[in-house]
Amino acid sequence: MEPIEVGILGATGNVGQQFIHLLSNNPWFRITALAASERNVGKRYSEACAWRLSADMPAAVRDLIVQPCEPGLNCQIVFSALPAGPAQEIELRLASAGYGVFSNASAHRMDADVPLLIPELNGAHLGLLAHQRESRGWDAGFIVTNPNCSSMGLTVALKPLYDAFGLRRVIVTTMQAISGAGYPGVPSLDILDNVVPLIRGEEEKMATEPLKILGAFEPTSGTLVPASFAVSASCNRVAVRDGHMESVSLELERKTSVEDLIRAFAEFRNRPFSLGCPSAVEHATVYRAEADRPQPILDRGAGRGMAVTIGRLRPCEVLDYKMTVLSHNTIRGAAGCSVLNAELMVAEGLL
Amino acid sequence: MEPIEVGILGATGNVGQQFIHLLSNNPWFRITALAASERNVGKRYSEACAWRLSADMPAAVRDLIVQPCEPGLNCQIVFSALPAGPAQEIELRLASAGYGVFSNASAHRMDADVPLLIPELNGAHLGLLAHQRESRGWDAGFIVTNPNCSSMGLTVALKPLYDAFGLRRVIVTTMQAISGAGYPGVPSLDILDNVVPLIRGEEEKMATEPLKILGAFEPTSGTLVPASFAVSASCNRVAVRDGHMESVSLELERKTSVEDLIRAFAEFRNRPFSLGCPSAVEHATVYRAEADRPQPILDRGAGRGMAVTIGRLRPCEVLDYKMTVLSHNTIRGAAGCSVLNAELMVAEGLL
Amino acid sequence: MEPIEVGILGATGNVGQQFIHLLSNNPWFRITALAASERNVGKRYSEACAWRLSADMPAAVRDLIVQPCEPGLNCQIVFSALPAGPAQEIELRLASAGYGVFSNASAHRMDADVPLLIPELNGAHLGLLAHQRESRGWDAGFIVTNPNCSSMGLTVALKPLYDAFGLRRVIVTTMQAISGAGYPGVPSLDILDNVVPLIRGEEEKMATEPLKILGAFEPTSGTLVPASFAVSASCNRVAVRDGHMESVSLELERKTSVEDLIRAFAEFRNRPFSLGCPSAVEHATVYRAEADRPQPILDRGAGRGMAVTIGRLRPCEVLDYKMTVLSHNTIRGAAGCSVLNAELMVAEGLL
Amino acid sequence: MEPIEVGILGATGNVGQQFIHLLSNNPWFRITALAASERNVGKRYSEACAWRLSADMPAAVRDLIVQPCEPGLNCQIVFSALPAGPAQEIELRLASAGYGVFSNASAHRMDADVPLLIPELNGAHLGLLAHQRESRGWDAGFIVTNPNCSSMGLTVALKPLYDAFGLRRVIVTTMQAISGAGYPGVPSLDILDNVVPLIRGEEEKMATEPLKILGAFEPTSGTLVPASFAVSASCNRVAVRDGHMESVSLELERKTSVEDLIRAFAEFRNRPFSLGCPSAVEHATVYRAEADRPQPILDRGAGRGMAVTIGRLRPCEVLDYKMTVLSHNTIRGAAGCSVLNAELMVAEGLL
Repeated sequence: MEPIEVGILGATGNVGQQFIHLLSNNPWFRITALAASERNVGKRYSEACAWRLSADMPAAVRDLIVQPCEPGLNCQIVFSALPAGPAQEIELRLASAGYGVFSNASAHRMDADVPLLIPELNGAHLGLLAHQRESRGWDAGFIVTNPNCSSMGLTVALKPLYDAFGLRRVIVTTMQAISGAGYPGVPSLDILDNVVPLIRGEEEKMATEPLKILGAFEPTSGTLVPASFAVSASCNRVAVRDGHMESVSLELERKTSVEDLIRAFAEFRNRPFSLGCPSAVEHATVYRAEADRPQPILDRGAGRGMAVTIGRLRPCEVLDYKMTVLSHNTIRGAAGCSVLNAELMVAEGLL
Repeated sequence: MEPIEVGILGATGNVGQQFIHLLSNNPWFRITALAASERNVGKRYSEACAWRLSADMPAAVRDLIVQPCEPGLNCQIVFSALPAGPAQEIELRLASAGYGVFSNASAHRMDADVPLLIPELNGAHLGLLAHQRESRGWDAGFIVTNPNCSSMGLTVALKPLYDAFGLRRVIVTTMQAISGAGYPGVPSLDILDNVVPLIRGEEEKMATEPLKILGAFEPTSGTLVPASFAVSASCNRVAVRDGHMESVSLELERKTSVEDLIRAFAEFRNRPFSLGCPSAVEHATVYRAEADRPQPILDRGAGRGMAVTIGRLRPCEVLDYKMTVLSHNTIRGAAGCSVLNAELMVAEGLL
Repeated sequence: MEPIEVGILGATGNVGQQFIHLLSNNPWFRITALAASERNVGKRYSEACAWRLSADMPAAVRDLIVQPCEPGLNCQIVFSALPAGPAQEIELRLASAGYGVFSNASAHRMDADVPLLIPELNGAHLGLLAHQRESRGWDAGFIVTNPNCSSMGLTVALKPLYDAFGLRRVIVTTMQAISGAGYPGVPSLDILDNVVPLIRGEEEKMATEPLKILGAFEPTSGTLVPASFAVSASCNRVAVRDGHMESVSLELERKTSVEDLIRAFAEFRNRPFSLGCPSAVEHATVYRAEADRPQPILDRGAGRGMAVTIGRLRPCEVLDYKMTVLSHNTIRGAAGCSVLNAELMVAEGLL
Repeated sequence: MEPIEVGILGATGNVGQQFIHLLSNNPWFRITALAASERNVGKRYSEACAWRLSADMPAAVRDLIVQPCEPGLNCQIVFSALPAGPAQEIELRLASAGYGVFSNASAHRMDADVPLLIPELNGAHLGLLAHQRESRGWDAGFIVTNPNCSSMGLTVALKPLYDAFGLRRVIVTTMQAISGAGYPGVPSLDILDNVVPLIRGEEEKMATEPLKILGAFEPTSGTLVPASFAVSASCNRVAVRDGHMESVSLELERKTSVEDLIRAFAEFRNRPFSLGCPSAVEHATVYRAEADRPQPILDRGAGRGMAVTIGRLRPCEVLDYKMTVLSHNTIRGAAGCSVLNAELMVAEGLL
């Protein structure tokens, strides 16, 4: 198979760099277009971008000329690392012009006809695309989104439990990494020797995105019925580079045991891995039995950053159970999920 | 009034140093005895102690000779900064020998006849001392304890709400400072760029201590009826020097409004301040209206470290309300509370 | 004495807030004017400023209306916390209009007729002001500057040695705090678990400012003869909130002993303290004999942040001696020095 | 070639774990013996060891039974991760019993007949082994050491300059990572928001080890003539997990240009790489031209942690040139060098 030609919107920012890093060794895709904001258009990428990853900038992108974020990009699909504001219009324009858009931005996540996709969880939601194209009058283009980085870890961890036992209520407190705010992002004076108890918009996303992701796609109507449990989130920023930690308490619909819950994580299988998607890992949920795990330093790299690590599953004095969840926010929680979304569509013959 | 002569048990450790620092300018007490473990007995304090506070070692203690933790100390009361293990026996021996023991250790906190005292909250629990002396056959000696540092902030913040609206259920996630583990305490490799989701014994203490503290002293029987709400805690260590942050969700007995809850914090009055205790602050609960407060760097010093700061009070999608609570763990949460316990007994004429 | 009315230029930034904090309890000055950039002019200070100090915003400034940085401010002197760019013109305009300008900016530091003042070191340089006024045609106005925060600690520490033994060569490596870059300043992704080996312009300042400060004022010519030793600096940013550490190696003109050097620090006396300046401390240079001092956490607050702490004085295998120097970069190294500059002029009857 | 069977002394500690991690994929060696202190002897390694690397414990060592650090280990060579104290005797005993000992401990580094080996720099020093065996009466056994982690980066960076231009004097200030102190090592209260200006014994090692390493082996006498330049070091601990930064000023014997020095780094070739040693990298010295490099976060992983990164080469106002040097202290500076030492001996037919 010839690699599919792909472009990156917002290629010079932090998530854009992650996209480039992840895609540069991906056998199914080849980067042929990089797009960014006006002031960088026309420059060679190596001049336009202040590269901040420890892995060196891939040679293949150094000399690509940065293009505007508009139709005319020489590629079939684009990965969007744009901020929510510009993403709103630009993604519509590109989808309308025939591009497949895989977006990490929040702009269209909650649109009724846009899949909010975690490929190991709700691949069936790709069924929304028929409805999306029809209602919007698009030919080949489409928009597929991936969730917010803090919703991501939570929802992956909830999925095996939701399927097996049902969920009623979830209370989650996050301790989120600074890389989640991009670059320059969090000023060091705000976080060194400190915790910031506010991440704007994050708690609202965590209250709604998991319900859409765990919702049921109705093939007949072509629409989605969201899940109906309640999520209450308290979001905090802590002095960690990568890896969002979450302390979670939950109430189930059907009572069970700690052992059964742990088994649900162990037995959880995912279709992208079965289909051979290059970014998929066999175990999307990893349970650590040690009393003091997960920890960002030790576990954020699990499954090359694509696995969600769960630990400390134990009874909760108020709801049913509590546990700790960790996911790598810039890989699993952003670029990595978006790339896997595209791989799933390739594997399913949809691209 | 002549200052009361006091001693410190475990004077060379972190909490011991905090006791010395706080007591050195206290007009009601004068440090006349320092006690520590065998290997330091007989040394001058300035030789025995690796002083680690930024304020210099008070001149008045430099030349005190370190004594064993036994009866024979030339003082009337002792503040105990001992670890839980040794505290068990030593504190009993000293109380039995006639010393008033104000203990920061967990050893006797949950003993039925020992006050677990936060002087702004439950001064009435000092009524237990009559029962304590009688049942144990002690003359002048007694044991008064203060709670665990993470229970402290939570319970102070809950008190005004408990009194006004009643409490049913509380879910709390802590982000605790490294100083809570003493010195050498948390290895830097465990916490730099990391979060540790386990602090042994802490969640159990948070599930039980608040109920005792907010319990009712029954003067007729001389016993305590604990409060009956449920507390579920998830305790995490973060890279902060001082100041425990807590994300709290709670369910009330009587429904109310955000405004009423905030007013309860503002209107909360405390008896130690009215009585003129030197360590008391007028506002033991401080509500910050800014969206991103409290923060350890900005708020841990509120009220000279004795105030508990609350912020972000808002509806909870699962229980009734959620909020963020911060308290200084080594002042409010340890030595400062213990000193105020002693001040309250002085002010009440019990010492 | 009536307090002198003072204004602050750049009042909403980090150094501006430090000026307000330090001046709010200063018995010799009263803040009557706050000035900032256009977008804040006309607002109440409490609305214009995102206050970031742990001490609350002083009540006396909350309702002051922010003014433009222009003549017309109702005060006699101004403290300038402006960035170097705008400072260039604005400070000239204000001095020309009759204001005494005490500037923390680098714009005019190296002007031949502008004192680069550390009041404990080179008060005689105020003699330049006569020349300054004459050559620039100013009546009452003038400009007095204080040095860069990393030059500050070094030069204070060198002064007693320079006076007693002469200096030939100095090699210094700095480990500088993040607060030196202002707010938002250093992105957290750049400094958490990291060291940045570049602070633009800093090494050049350290190579030149100490020579001017330790230079000799010639009363007859009214000019300054700079000192003639060589300084080579390597400047690094580290994950510390406040307090610049410096590892210093030096070669003396006259050979001596470790004991003599330490004695020079101990015996160093300063005129601002003798004159009763409120911000002066008796010991501007504090030598710590412990093997592992100074440390930012323990020593940056020495002398209310105005003392420079020196430690580890020992022979150098290449030059003569080496030592470690620490100073609080936002107090001693910025606003605190500027305020003391003004106090010295008051005490000397020059204001 | 059959892999050589190797053992690890001090296998449960931090450096021991690094050895296991690095050796587990090494094609030339197979771990067959793990040895540790008495209290762990007899346990399965997975029980004896609190594994703290993010990479999981290799399956191949999980069930090995921990042995005492004595002759009787079923292997041909041992890598010693012992502390200096116990290393003194144990390493002698094992070498005497016929084992090849590759030691990361400081105990025997400065023994006249023991190579202090950096395989890219001074492979010729292996000639000392003949003398070592003869004088000590050993048959097959021997001791080869690698330098202290802070000497390592400095000496690798100095080597190309020393060879091409000669060295007279070096002044170096280190900013060293916490992993250099092992586990539990540096207490977090000592380093968060802090710098510690003392690492015991480190400055002495940096003053002597580079001279031995860069010394000349005289084949006729079989002895070593150390290099004769002077090194003055100031060692600091900073809040970085891995990667020692060093600000270096140096005086050359023969004057040259910045360009020539940079070229010397670029042109530096190393024999272990030419010989195909698996742990060797083509470029042991990497020069980064960016103004703000090297940085621990970005560059410590260069060459899989085996390359030393240099940057900011520029004239020094006091000596000739100054530069910044970074090396990964637990890979390049400890276990990685030791493994490469063994590989070089294999490649040279000495094992």
